[in-house]
Amino acid sequence: MTVARPSGRAPDQLREVRIERGFTRHAEGSVLVSFGETRVLCTASVENRVPAFLRGKGEGWVTAEYGMLPRSTHTRSDREASRGKQGGRTLEIQRLIGRTLRACVDRGALGERTITLDCDVLQADGGTRTAAITGAYVALVDAIRWLQAKREITRDPVFGAVAAVSVGIYQGVPVLDLDYAEDSNCDTDMNVVMNDGGGFIELQGTAEGHAFRRTELDALLALAESGIGELLAAQQAALART
Amino acid sequence: MTVARPSGRAPDQLREVRIERGFTRHAEGSVLVSFGETRVLCTASVENRVPAFLRGKGEGWVTAEYGMLPRSTHTRSDREASRGKQGGRTLEIQRLIGRTLRACVDRGALGERTITLDCDVLQADGGTRTAAITGAYVALVDAIRWLQAKREITRDPVFGAVAAVSVGIYQGVPVLDLDYAEDSNCDTDMNVVMNDGGGFIELQGTAEGHAFRRTELDALLALAESGIGELLAAQQAALART
Amino acid sequence: MTVARPSGRAPDQLREVRIERGFTRHAEGSVLVSFGETRVLCTASVENRVPAFLRGKGEGWVTAEYGMLPRSTHTRSDREASRGKQGGRTLEIQRLIGRTLRACVDRGALGERTITLDCDVLQADGGTRTAAITGAYVALVDAIRWLQAKREITRDPVFGAVAAVSVGIYQGVPVLDLDYAEDSNCDTDMNVVMNDGGGFIELQGTAEGHAFRRTELDALLALAESGIGELLAAQQAALART
Amino acid sequence: MTVARPSGRAPDQLREVRIERGFTRHAEGSVLVSFGETRVLCTASVENRVPAFLRGKGEGWVTAEYGMLPRSTHTRSDREASRGKQGGRTLEIQRLIGRTLRACVDRGALGERTITLDCDVLQADGGTRTAAITGAYVALVDAIRWLQAKREITRDPVFGAVAAVSVGIYQGVPVLDLDYAEDSNCDTDMNVVMNDGGGFIELQGTAEGHAFRRTELDALLALAESGIGELLAAQQAALART
Amino acid sequence: MTVARPSGRAPDQLREVRIERGFTRHAEGSVLVSFGETRVLCTASVENRVPAFLRGKGEGWVTAEYGMLPRSTHTRSDREASRGKQGGRTLEIQRLIGRTLRACVDRGALGERTITLDCDVLQADGGTRTAAITGAYVALVDAIRWLQAKREITRDPVFGAVAAVSVGIYQGVPVLDLDYAEDSNCDTDMNVVMNDGGGFIELQGTAEGHAFRRTELDALLALAESGIGELLAAQQAALART
Amino acid sequence: MTVARPSGRAPDQLREVRIERGFTRHAEGSVLVSFGETRVLCTASVENRVPAFLRGKGEGWVTAEYGMLPRSTHTRSDREASRGKQGGRTLEIQRLIGRTLRACVDRGALGERTITLDCDVLQADGGTRTAAITGAYVALVDAIRWLQAKREITRDPVFGAVAAVSVGIYQGVPVLDLDYAEDSNCDTDMNVVMNDGGGFIELQGTAEGHAFRRTELDALLALAESGIGELLAAQQAALART
Repeated sequence: MTVARPSGRAPDQLREVRIERGFTRHAEGSVLVSFGETRVLCTASVENRVPAFLRGKGEGWVTAEYGMLPRSTHTRSDREASRGKQGGRTLEIQRLIGRTLRACVDRGALGERTITLDCDVLQADGGTRTAAITGAYVALVDAIRWLQAKREITRDPVFGAVAAVSVGIYQGVPVLDLDYAEDSNCDTDMNVVMNDGGGFIELQGTAEGHAFRRTELDALLALAESGIGELLAAQQAALART
Repeated sequence: MTVARPSGRAPDQLREVRIERGFTRHAEGSVLVSFGETRVLCTASVENRVPAFLRGKGEGWVTAEYGMLPRSTHTRSDREASRGKQGGRTLEIQRLIGRTLRACVDRGALGERTITLDCDVLQADGGTRTAAITGAYVALVDAIRWLQAKREITRDPVFGAVAAVSVGIYQGVPVLDLDYAEDSNCDTDMNVVMNDGGGFIELQGTAEGHAFRRTELDALLALAESGIGELLAAQQAALART
Repeated sequence: MTVARPSGRAPDQLREVRIERGFTRHAEGSVLVSFGETRVLCTASVENRVPAFLRGKGEGWVTAEYGMLPRSTHTRSDREASRGKQGGRTLEIQRLIGRTLRACVDRGALGERTITLDCDVLQADGGTRTAAITGAYVALVDAIRWLQAKREITRDPVFGAVAAVSVGIYQGVPVLDLDYAEDSNCDTDMNVVMNDGGGFIELQGTAEGHAFRRTELDALLALAESGIGELLAAQQAALART
Repeated sequence: MTVARPSGRAPDQLREVRIERGFTRHAEGSVLVSFGETRVLCTASVENRVPAFLRGKGEGWVTAEYGMLPRSTHTRSDREASRGKQGGRTLEIQRLIGRTLRACVDRGALGERTITLDCDVLQADGGTRTAAITGAYVALVDAIRWLQAKREITRDPVFGAVAAVSVGIYQGVPVLDLDYAEDSNCDTDMNVVMNDGGGFIELQGTAEGHAFRRTELDALLALAESGIGELLAAQQAALART
Repeated sequence: MTVARPSGRAPDQLREVRIERGFTRHAEGSVLVSFGETRVLCTASVENRVPAFLRGKGEGWVTAEYGMLPRSTHTRSDREASRGKQGGRTLEIQRLIGRTLRACVDRGALGERTITLDCDVLQADGGTRTAAITGAYVALVDAIRWLQAKREITRDPVFGAVAAVSVGIYQGVPVLDLDYAEDSNCDTDMNVVMNDGGGFIELQGTAEGHAFRRTELDALLALAESGIGELLAAQQAALART
Repeated sequence: MTVARPSGRAPDQLREVRIERGFTRHAEGSVLVSFGETRVLCTASVENRVPAFLRGKGEGWVTAEYGMLPRSTHTRSDREASRGKQGGRTLEIQRLIGRTLRACVDRGALGERTITLDCDVLQADGGTRTAAITGAYVALVDAIRWLQAKREITRDPVFGAVAAVSVGIYQGVPVLDLDYAEDSNCDTDMNVVMNDGGGFIELQGTAEGHAFRRTELDALLALAESGIGELLAAQQAALART
């Protein structure tokens, strides 16, 4: 089965992935992640406090916030700070990012600290949430290394790794890592988050045009699994650089 | 594989499902849906206007709003109207309900009308969003029948049917239709929305405790498919009553 | 003096009153009250804390919140949670409900607890605030009984009973317990709250069309007094059931 | 029956009433009204537009807004603009002011104009809402005279006059026009709005300490009627000055 | 160089300045300041608490809030409390007022107290922020005197005095203390705050029509210096009255 | 007079200035400007509509919005979108940016278009507002060139150029272009905006510690003038690159 992807990519081909650590200097972890033209700045901030519901329990917290710069998109979007509230899509995405990263953190080993992952989209071309998860993981690890270097924690609270990718059915063909041109024209769209043990952390599939069949689902999951393998490798390569 | 579910149900057993049409009198469709002790009032309201982005295109719109009465839950929750904003969970759920119901509506046949599905939880015991989708579908059909009875539309804009159920892994065993006691203690939780053609409309799986394997995913999907079959039948039975 | 009320009722005739206790299961008190087609769910929630201005004083607090489901009305109203604030009418009504119920509670005997009365209108046909007060009183007593059964309080903090009804001048004739058809066409509208000792707790009269004379006021008060007597009896009958 | 009022006034004695027209210069009507130490600036602003629900109907609108300067009170109150919303008491009062003034305006004769009455409390000592109504009436008449002087309207849309006063039971004795020292210690508090034909426009009575009896109500209404007579005379005297 | 100012004033002539202490009675300092037809009520409120960031440091805080009554202006402006937020101009002005008054207060000598300066514009005719600063200084001194009279503080925390005036280039000529007619037609507008030692506290110049040259700046600063001298004298004269 | 600046710079020495055009791809103008470690992304977005107050007048509008990424600062700041409003400092800065850029645009020549300058701080080290103005000017010119390339406008609406720099008195010595270490310890801080004709557009000076004298002001203005000259040259150099 062949398809002419707007980018000329093969169905199972990721966009070029770049993970640039230390992009800004104040944050304990700061990563600029690019999935092709999608660029997201992910910072990890460590604070010595936890939300009220965790106080005194000896556990830490990992949370995320997500935003798009007003002109990261093709046409300018309203600034959420100016409109006075975050939209439903924003809340949905930042809840997703926080949840998936907590899935690889031992909160007891973190101690009473909060790590906030701010994922701000500088340029959007589809897949901002999957890029954000993939980049935020690297920023999180850098923040943990910073805590270890300062000898504030001894045990590494991060176990395994997580990465995310989108898959979808474009012109009848399952494809990996949708860009904007595909995303806005595809029938089915699924975001998949997996860990490095091959387990699923999150699965969010939506039929845009037509309900998808079980065989289509299987094909999409296979694509996602292969793409996430490449992303996990890219994370490790970035983390190995000094 | 056996499991002691708090309710004594078999792993593949739904809670008692009741669908009561005409629960309140003003709405064009009004359904009280119960999945066991979870009770959601779903009303469908027809208005002769569409959102700004659709004006003049000859198409209609279907949207949803979701709320929980403050004491529908075990302990009282803040009233969102009083806090001044809807939380992320609320926005996420109402976006889901609207999206899945639009998946079975021909918006051209609806004409320039908006149907709003208000899903208000009177009593919560797990699975409020899946009950809401299942009940809102029936309220939607009643609103369409009302339009047809008034001869405002000729062609039926609803094609097929949609229903939803949750599945999860409780004490290592895949189970169908989680109640609160299970939901708050399960490792993996998935909401599945399907249509009566056996296609998937939405799939939202989250690993709470441990990442789930592909074999577990397959077992969960099989349970969901069977449960949704029963729910689709319950909807048709309710709609057949006069 | 005769008048043709839309409902065919006599001028001094209440609508059918039903008070259903235990309507939902989580709240310490839960009452569905109906004044004819007006149906309000009143729950009483007990919490072991008081607002900041009462902390450490050994006194409790009783407060109320009021809401209308968006399609409880003839045409759909905006959801206040979605608009981001409660309107003036809502605030006015919930302040009234809280104030009148505090009038029959010994807050010292309640101890440092808050009882919140949530009054949510499922279906509106005039008189929602008077139905809410009448039903909330029963929910409040049930919550107190729950505290007594758990032996958390010894002395009963509720003294006497309160109930409320509307009266108005419809087509020149004073009538009791206005429904929507009357309420939207009457010249004068008054809400009266009384206790079982025959004292007035609140009186709120508004001339819609023409200013009312002292003799009209006297006739309205007499109607209210008689109607409230019936409502107080209905409350006691409901509370006597087990 | 005697009572020692903190101010030394007789039970049926108003505080000194002053009505100063033209207090500020930009508004079409601008009145500083004083009930003793309570001082409220009431301005009437004319605008050639009406709210959306009245557009094209040939009718005008009269509305009110109410505010207290942060340090009009004994201890500083938060500024509502800074807290980001108007409280329930504010909304309740401004709805009352608007409603009572609409009761003496022929909105057809006003034409498609809005008159907004801004009532801002410069100094509070009890009775701010009754002073506001009494002063706003004078500001309203001045705005109408301004319209007539400009020959924008021919027929006078104001019929009759309205004024308001509070009454209450202080130390067991019915008294007129409560100041703050009385208001914060009285058992029953009632605000009465009447017109110059002796009719009631609004009646709002609240039992603070004990429920009030019918005989007490009668005594309060008699006091109010007499006090409002004096206030209506003070309005006319002010309006007769040039 | 001559110019016909709308008011007939000479280029270096202030409007009539009046400073009326004790305008309202509850505040610890209460000043009605008039710069011609601009009238601002400035109250100083003392509270025995400080913002969170200062707690336990033994220092006090001085802050300001600013508001305009809706009809202080030529045409009615929206009430900020009703719109639900303070606009950018309001925030900018109240930050300026607070900052400039803190410049003459020894916060250690004040002790853990907050003084809030509420500056509410009753009537606007240009220069409301400079009038507010000039009047708020007098209200602040009165509040300090009140603290000293109660022997709550011993050392006077106010050192020196501050006053403010606007200057601008109107029809090519530098003029002092712009009124509304000038302000809305001038090319350059500058607000200057100085202390009684001849030092600058704030300088805010804006080119409206044409960028201003260094020589123009020098002329404006000379005018401001002379005007502020007169204002400082007016403050001292007002404070000398008993 | 010598001073040890934390950065080792001479008193009249700017930080390294970099102006990178085309930093993101969707905006009509997109500039990453760096003043040393301060990095601000400035995008210019063109829209074919104007605010309501300009509709039908044939004029365009230029406006700005400003934001800081939560971890652009040393410690994480709350996200304004999440807090639900923009703070006073943000509003003040974005009003300043918009006002200064309008000072070099002929709005008639722009036609009924809005250009929005979004200035988002990626990394903060003092002087974010002056960097923003300097970079936004370049983004604005690029947006105008885009309009000219599309032949949507014929006449260039930008006349002259504007740039901005901060100056201050650090340890008694006037210095140019304060970084964070200086800014948080200086006595006087002034932001200066000038055009390429040597005229002042804005001047905002604040005495933090001690009121500044006229001679100090003169020294600061001289420094600013020289620094802005260099910045104007850097803008032209950047705009000359292709």
